[in-house]
Amino acid sequence: MPLVRISLMKGKPKGFGRQVGGVVYRSMIDTINVPAKDNFQIITEHDSNSLIYDPAYLDIPRTYGLVIIQITLNEGRSVEMKKVFYKVVADGLHRELGIRKEDVFISLIEVKKENWSFGNGMAQYAG
Amino acid sequence: MPLVRISLMKGKPKGFGRQVGGVVYRSMIDTINVPAKDNFQIITEHDSNSLIYDPAYLDIPRTYGLVIIQITLNEGRSVEMKKVFYKVVADGLHRELGIRKEDVFISLIEVKKENWSFGNGMAQYAG
Amino acid sequence: MPLVRISLMKGKPKGFGRQVGGVVYRSMIDTINVPAKDNFQIITEHDSNSLIYDPAYLDIPRTYGLVIIQITLNEGRSVEMKKVFYKVVADGLHRELGIRKEDVFISLIEVKKENWSFGNGMAQYAG
Repeated sequence: MPLVRISLMKGKPKGFGRQVGGVVYRSMIDTINVPAKDNFQIITEHDSNSLIYDPAYLDIPRTYGLVIIQITLNEGRSVEMKKVFYKVVADGLHRELGIRKEDVFISLIEVKKENWSFGNGMAQYAG
Repeated sequence: MPLVRISLMKGKPKGFGRQVGGVVYRSMIDTINVPAKDNFQIITEHDSNSLIYDPAYLDIPRTYGLVIIQITLNEGRSVEMKKVFYKVVADGLHRELGIRKEDVFISLIEVKKENWSFGNGMAQYAG
Repeated sequence: MPLVRISLMKGKPKGFGRQVGGVVYRSMIDTINVPAKDNFQIITEHDSNSLIYDPAYLDIPRTYGLVIIQITLNEGRSVEMKKVFYKVVADGLHRELGIRKEDVFISLIEVKKENWSFGNGMAQYAG
């Protein structure tokens, strides 16, 4: 159900965005009850004229290595679960791909469970 | 009012994404009370490293022909209307463009009616 | 906190999208209490097959110069604040960049304050 949009700068090795997505996917399974195989992602690459960021907002130093992750998902996760999710994503991206934790930006958009069709023109979560 | 984002794989004929969008637009008019001419869409093409999908989630077999449709629209449509919409989109894409119904993925994001400006710096729906 | 997605047609001078984003950023500070430095934007360029618009919906004449601005931000702004924001963006884009006010399309998506991580795996707004 989550639909994940990942935006990063050009110049990374081929498949790097996909690897970022893999970490996000596994983190969702581990922390916010996303079922296995529920993996749908759109990854885009940008240059410094098309991915804009402030290098110091909230006193967090950001670099060209910034990764913006925006996830549409069902409502209902607690604040505590979201906090754990953010930490696991940043830790995982740092550990597995060498991304600075300061460069991990995450935005969640919550929707109702009837707002998805996974194929065949049906609302699989609507009950 | 709906803002439609369509993501599909590269390699389709020129204008194919636009045709997909046409089916989505007409389905919205026919099923969820979207007014005529209310047609705003952003279409992007991807490769297998930038559009990620699971080929079996919920036992729905998906292929490279996958189309991801994410629509921001006003809140208030009933679950029943959404179900009809999903069906009409999948049926229409299959009938008109030969897209497999299993390959039609839809995500809705609902917002308040004052969250739109259609031009001239005004909130046309805010009353 | 706002994450701004700007979509415009190809053919503009290099950096034009970034200039559009600058006007949006300053308008958010001036009208809807966005703090300074809170500037995160993703800008994409399209052709007439990938950015679709109706040239007359709501009797507003739109052209190839259309700019679609979709902003994810925290909930809680009043209708009145949103109206002022729309006006200031359209006026600013017209005055500074010569964009027709009819060609300024804005969509807002509101989320909870715990739905953001600005880096370091923390939910900076969650309290």
